[in-house]
Amino acid sequence: MQLPKAAEPDDHPTVSSALRDAYAQVRETSVALAAPLAPEDQVLQSMPDASPTKWHLAHTSWFFETFLLKPRLDGYRPIDERYDYLFNSYYQQIGAQFPRARRGLLSRPTVDQVLDYRAHVDDAMQALIAREGDDVADLVTLGLNHEQQHQELLVTDIKHLLAINPLAPAPYGPALALAQDAPPLHWIDFDGGLREIGFHGNGFAFDNEGPRHRQHLEAFALASRPVTNGEFIAFMDAGGYADPALWLSEGWARVQAEGWTAPLYWEPAATGWTRYTLHGRLPVDPAAPVCHVSYYEAAAYAAWAGCRLPTEAEWEVAASGAPVEGHFLDIARLEPSACGGTGAKLWQIYGDVWEWTASAYSAYPRYRPAAGAIGEYNGKFMSNQMVLRGGSCATPAGHIRPSYRNFFPPDTRWQYSGIRLAQDR
Amino acid sequence: MQLPKAAEPDDHPTVSSALRDAYAQVRETSVALAAPLAPEDQVLQSMPDASPTKWHLAHTSWFFETFLLKPRLDGYRPIDERYDYLFNSYYQQIGAQFPRARRGLLSRPTVDQVLDYRAHVDDAMQALIAREGDDVADLVTLGLNHEQQHQELLVTDIKHLLAINPLAPAPYGPALALAQDAPPLHWIDFDGGLREIGFHGNGFAFDNEGPRHRQHLEAFALASRPVTNGEFIAFMDAGGYADPALWLSEGWARVQAEGWTAPLYWEPAATGWTRYTLHGRLPVDPAAPVCHVSYYEAAAYAAWAGCRLPTEAEWEVAASGAPVEGHFLDIARLEPSACGGTGAKLWQIYGDVWEWTASAYSAYPRYRPAAGAIGEYNGKFMSNQMVLRGGSCATPAGHIRPSYRNFFPPDTRWQYSGIRLAQDR
Amino acid sequence: MQLPKAAEPDDHPTVSSALRDAYAQVRETSVALAAPLAPEDQVLQSMPDASPTKWHLAHTSWFFETFLLKPRLDGYRPIDERYDYLFNSYYQQIGAQFPRARRGLLSRPTVDQVLDYRAHVDDAMQALIAREGDDVADLVTLGLNHEQQHQELLVTDIKHLLAINPLAPAPYGPALALAQDAPPLHWIDFDGGLREIGFHGNGFAFDNEGPRHRQHLEAFALASRPVTNGEFIAFMDAGGYADPALWLSEGWARVQAEGWTAPLYWEPAATGWTRYTLHGRLPVDPAAPVCHVSYYEAAAYAAWAGCRLPTEAEWEVAASGAPVEGHFLDIARLEPSACGGTGAKLWQIYGDVWEWTASAYSAYPRYRPAAGAIGEYNGKFMSNQMVLRGGSCATPAGHIRPSYRNFFPPDTRWQYSGIRLAQDR
Amino acid sequence: MQLPKAAEPDDHPTVSSALRDAYAQVRETSVALAAPLAPEDQVLQSMPDASPTKWHLAHTSWFFETFLLKPRLDGYRPIDERYDYLFNSYYQQIGAQFPRARRGLLSRPTVDQVLDYRAHVDDAMQALIAREGDDVADLVTLGLNHEQQHQELLVTDIKHLLAINPLAPAPYGPALALAQDAPPLHWIDFDGGLREIGFHGNGFAFDNEGPRHRQHLEAFALASRPVTNGEFIAFMDAGGYADPALWLSEGWARVQAEGWTAPLYWEPAATGWTRYTLHGRLPVDPAAPVCHVSYYEAAAYAAWAGCRLPTEAEWEVAASGAPVEGHFLDIARLEPSACGGTGAKLWQIYGDVWEWTASAYSAYPRYRPAAGAIGEYNGKFMSNQMVLRGGSCATPAGHIRPSYRNFFPPDTRWQYSGIRLAQDR
Repeated sequence: MQLPKAAEPDDHPTVSSALRDAYAQVRETSVALAAPLAPEDQVLQSMPDASPTKWHLAHTSWFFETFLLKPRLDGYRPIDERYDYLFNSYYQQIGAQFPRARRGLLSRPTVDQVLDYRAHVDDAMQALIAREGDDVADLVTLGLNHEQQHQELLVTDIKHLLAINPLAPAPYGPALALAQDAPPLHWIDFDGGLREIGFHGNGFAFDNEGPRHRQHLEAFALASRPVTNGEFIAFMDAGGYADPALWLSEGWARVQAEGWTAPLYWEPAATGWTRYTLHGRLPVDPAAPVCHVSYYEAAAYAAWAGCRLPTEAEWEVAASGAPVEGHFLDIARLEPSACGGTGAKLWQIYGDVWEWTASAYSAYPRYRPAAGAIGEYNGKFMSNQMVLRGGSCATPAGHIRPSYRNFFPPDTRWQYSGIRLAQDR
Repeated sequence: MQLPKAAEPDDHPTVSSALRDAYAQVRETSVALAAPLAPEDQVLQSMPDASPTKWHLAHTSWFFETFLLKPRLDGYRPIDERYDYLFNSYYQQIGAQFPRARRGLLSRPTVDQVLDYRAHVDDAMQALIAREGDDVADLVTLGLNHEQQHQELLVTDIKHLLAINPLAPAPYGPALALAQDAPPLHWIDFDGGLREIGFHGNGFAFDNEGPRHRQHLEAFALASRPVTNGEFIAFMDAGGYADPALWLSEGWARVQAEGWTAPLYWEPAATGWTRYTLHGRLPVDPAAPVCHVSYYEAAAYAAWAGCRLPTEAEWEVAASGAPVEGHFLDIARLEPSACGGTGAKLWQIYGDVWEWTASAYSAYPRYRPAAGAIGEYNGKFMSNQMVLRGGSCATPAGHIRPSYRNFFPPDTRWQYSGIRLAQDR
Repeated sequence: MQLPKAAEPDDHPTVSSALRDAYAQVRETSVALAAPLAPEDQVLQSMPDASPTKWHLAHTSWFFETFLLKPRLDGYRPIDERYDYLFNSYYQQIGAQFPRARRGLLSRPTVDQVLDYRAHVDDAMQALIAREGDDVADLVTLGLNHEQQHQELLVTDIKHLLAINPLAPAPYGPALALAQDAPPLHWIDFDGGLREIGFHGNGFAFDNEGPRHRQHLEAFALASRPVTNGEFIAFMDAGGYADPALWLSEGWARVQAEGWTAPLYWEPAATGWTRYTLHGRLPVDPAAPVCHVSYYEAAAYAAWAGCRLPTEAEWEVAASGAPVEGHFLDIARLEPSACGGTGAKLWQIYGDVWEWTASAYSAYPRYRPAAGAIGEYNGKFMSNQMVLRGGSCATPAGHIRPSYRNFFPPDTRWQYSGIRLAQDR
Repeated sequence: MQLPKAAEPDDHPTVSSALRDAYAQVRETSVALAAPLAPEDQVLQSMPDASPTKWHLAHTSWFFETFLLKPRLDGYRPIDERYDYLFNSYYQQIGAQFPRARRGLLSRPTVDQVLDYRAHVDDAMQALIAREGDDVADLVTLGLNHEQQHQELLVTDIKHLLAINPLAPAPYGPALALAQDAPPLHWIDFDGGLREIGFHGNGFAFDNEGPRHRQHLEAFALASRPVTNGEFIAFMDAGGYADPALWLSEGWARVQAEGWTAPLYWEPAATGWTRYTLHGRLPVDPAAPVCHVSYYEAAAYAAWAGCRLPTEAEWEVAASGAPVEGHFLDIARLEPSACGGTGAKLWQIYGDVWEWTASAYSAYPRYRPAAGAIGEYNGKFMSNQMVLRGGSCATPAGHIRPSYRNFFPPDTRWQYSGIRLAQDR
């Protein structure tokens, strides 16, 4: 099954009609992602950082209801006023929230009731867009991008949940077989100097991608492709997880406390390493990018390889010349795959795996969050997180840009996160 | 809906046929208890002490499979060998167990798959009983009593889960209205002397109910009925939860740590106290027995009332003269109800609420657990638990006896546990 | 150094003078126990269950101040009113308490200041006893018995603390060498029937030792001496710590969680097992009673040996015929030692090691705690604890009786607790 | 008492003699800081992030022993080989470490034994410096700067410990009275453009202060002085601690979890806010810089004030023009004090309080940690920490520089950390 792809609003003659189509397509994609899952799958929460599938389906609807329908659609009647409390994620200025860590204790509303909620919101949203057109385009587009972010989280969260199950469920069917070799890694050089980064131009971007501003860079080089599983196994075989000299202090503490000896989801078998995927448990493909590693593991690998991770400014300067193409969200293939190694000099800079950067997530110079509750979207998370760039195989196509800043705490492993090396030049 | 009642095997001409009927009826009751629940309800676990509904349905099947089908039915083929790991509760001698606290992280097998598992086991069990007759009667009867215990746990566990949900689900429909007054409490006197307690006679009993043995009792009196909600509210209004002098030291620590100010599931409303029930949130009925209190609360109430709790020997001596009748498991009325106050001297000594005794759960003189894994059923829990007696509104009819010993840690509140007072004479 | 021994008040012509002597001697013993310790030793707390040495020295003084000096000595001026908050242990009716788990975060008052506090209280107490004589004898005697209990805790707590230190301090100097063999174990039979237990006669006893009352016992046998280290090593070598079938469920969980493979303070060395003692790290003596085992380990050992633990009634009936003699608190020898095996049928029934019984700590029939705060001394701890009997090598001589009930949670290991086996007859 | 001040090695004709003097002076300062404390004070640890005084005294000696005496002084005999394990802080390449969180469970070596250890090391170090001269200058200087860092930690750690004590000890005597007003805040403007930051020139610097490199800055302004207690009280009175819109998400979670309503050590009294200081509990001085606030509180205050925190590059560019003068470590006055408001444009840019910057602690471009264990000094802490600049009233004079980077996690409050505001221009 191929997921519907979000239309590009700019391609259409009238904004309102394009927006309605885009709205319908993004919303359908979420439902299509959940459809192969049993109701039992959709209600569970494997850890406080993850949410149940049905919570994602409901929360994204609550977002439209809260920021568009209630303030702007006269006569709108919520399906259940109590959903405000249940499905507000973290908007303190909107009101109290059901505790995040307990989202997986709510069997009701059921999956069917959540789908009814979605339909109720969708009907009202289509009416609102038809009536307001351009006036709501910015907020609707924000809501759709928000929903696309939750599509990726839906995938990573259900993977984390199902990986716990000894039955190794494969809700999306068997994986496409894609065996191929990875091309040898080479280095792409970039000059130093004063550079500009941050979003510019038309189209949508999150507030944290701007303002566009100057940074001074030293000359550097970027690896032509991400680190592969095969290369990472060499690090493991060389004792990488047992040598504290390679690790950040907090990383080493985590290795010890959690007993990390391999990326998340990996298990040894008689025939070699295996990994849990949403297509079942599979052998680790040496040619595919290593995935589900934390920032700590990325930094340790880079230290072992005598390299470093790129800063986000280096990454963005390098990536800005490359086409935004790659392996994005497709439920037939929810795993990173080996690099073809043709075309652009920077391979797989988009898609497959998010790439950890050496940059802590912080405000760009002169950044101002939006006023009101919507300003809580990004800015309030600017502590103890590292920036990742480039999107993954769970990122919806059309959702990624050179300036896109993803961010997670450095111990995060359940996202599709990998490693691209950098060097000084 | 009325739940099927287990037939009494002794009433039937041939053991095998009676046993097959009893088997069918007990097994149907479990399914009937789960039927009104959504799949989403059946998969969640609200705390480590509770289990998901579908786990109860599967584990009780595993019990028959493990202790009867695998050792005794030639050619029996399990539906999935991995269920051994998933559905073994605590039998160390059988093998490893999926961690108890994580049972609520397993979406698979789904509810439907668990029902298939039950059908598979049921078919094989009927064949086994038909073939082996008397030879398996003891183990089958143990398995059925085991399943009845899980029926009560299923009810208490789903109540604990749904009570968390702000939507206050009422899966078993509205409650029967049963408003009536509680009769005044009076005291029933019992002489002291050397008495016998413990199971005797024919029929089934758990190993921990014997051997029958002598205990010397001092003269005592037992209250004619359990403490009511109204009486307990008087304790609350008198500052009972705020006066450390009434409490056991550990109980007071718990009151402080958990912020207890009322029985579990109670919440104040403008019109007075309400309680969550499986029939929705309802006003607290002052005439009904107080329920969902811990041993600590029971002991504090008794201290406040200038009384004490009975020992289990006192309770059993007193109850042995009363008919084993009362308000037992019935999904139309899953709450204790006010005492009619007619008939026997001791009202509601069976059913409605389990009654905390002052006795720690320990081995009777000359008690020996059964050999092998089945010996893990009872004996290994003899530490840090208090005995409760008499059954509750969630105990299946036919499952209770004068000698029946239930046991839970003293801080337990999610069982249907109440208070009957005693005094020295 | 020999500790001063408490005089027996009953042996003296005038109560007041005898009481003043007893007071002086008990109080001096506490100071003598602390004297070999550095100030640095006396301020630390190794776990919430243990207290700093200087806290014991201060709290026992607070006890006299609170229950005697403040209510009964006109014009008594406390040295510092804030000590009430710092040194109240758990008397809720007296007032708030500095949190128990944080006692080891208080460097002030210093050890010297605490000794000043003791001297201040002692002067006032001598004046009070001189003036009031008989009228305060009961409370003073309670205070002295209370202080003797804290002498034992002082020893067990400092041992627990110093055992953490890789330097293995030996504050009380090297141990007396006492190598000898243990005599073979034999069984002493006791008839069943109606027996009386509980304190009777004159002299001091805690309230929880009464009232004296009847219990019906079945015939039983008691081992002639405690289980030795050598016998316990046989259990260990037979895989006792690895076989869940031997353990209570909670005990097994504890074994797994804590990684228990031997008694507390034991460590393997090239030459065999060693144990930390207050005389330094020493080889485990196979002939000495096993010590620092929990109730769980005691019960598992008994199951492995095909025996059981005695109930406290059995223990008391058996011990009542034996002289109250044994190896009690002596700072030259703060470890249990091998049984001489001469004299009484029951060897080492007093002293050396506390013996775990199979009885949960609960109220005797018709037990009533004292009125007021002093009633919090014993009764409020009657949950989740097991009774130990007979005293240990850290119990002051004169402090133990046949009816004496010590009690600790079943996972307790830092007390001098051992095992005596029982059997049905 | 005035602490000895470290000589500047560059001021002396021969390095060796200057170095021996500097060595002696820095080492004496540590002992002088501990001298007013009781042994009981010096052994306790109030939280895992803090260490006992005597541990600081020992660890700084271990540093010299490990990195200088053992590898370079022939015939050096350690006083106790086991100190390696006890006093290694975090150098994985040296060997195992006694667990940091349990440092406060070690009563031995006693304070006197630690002072013997110091004397032993000092004798050997003086011999080594005399013999090796210039060849060990770099490592000795590193060791002295390391010891100065521990002097500040000794002060902050003992303050954290003593603040727990209801007796409010004042080991350093009463505070100097320094009442004065704070001058009005004004803004100092700085142009944007390409700037250089990082250490340059001669003298000592930590590796993380380099390499010197270029950064592009936008025009900005810096407040002329730190935020005062009076200004911070205005934030508190305006509901700053209760308004989630002002806080980073993690900061708000911390406020809720910890119940923060004021800076650390503050308590309300009838006459207004008080704070615990090492000179006893004192009224909060409205004119003095606010201190003991976390990064979260600093950022929330800045948001409330419509400003922001400076980046570390902005701070360093601004501070580089100011003389390195201020209120540094002096045991007569271990609290920040009101700003005189004369002289330099930027008041109190050094000393009094560390100033939180908006910059996460990370590697400067082309930074390389030193080889071997000494490379663990700084680089491995580059995650989840924020940079602070400028030194405090507990920083030894001579230890601070424009390029000096201090770093702590954003929830840290027990350091002398305050707030200086910045604005865009």
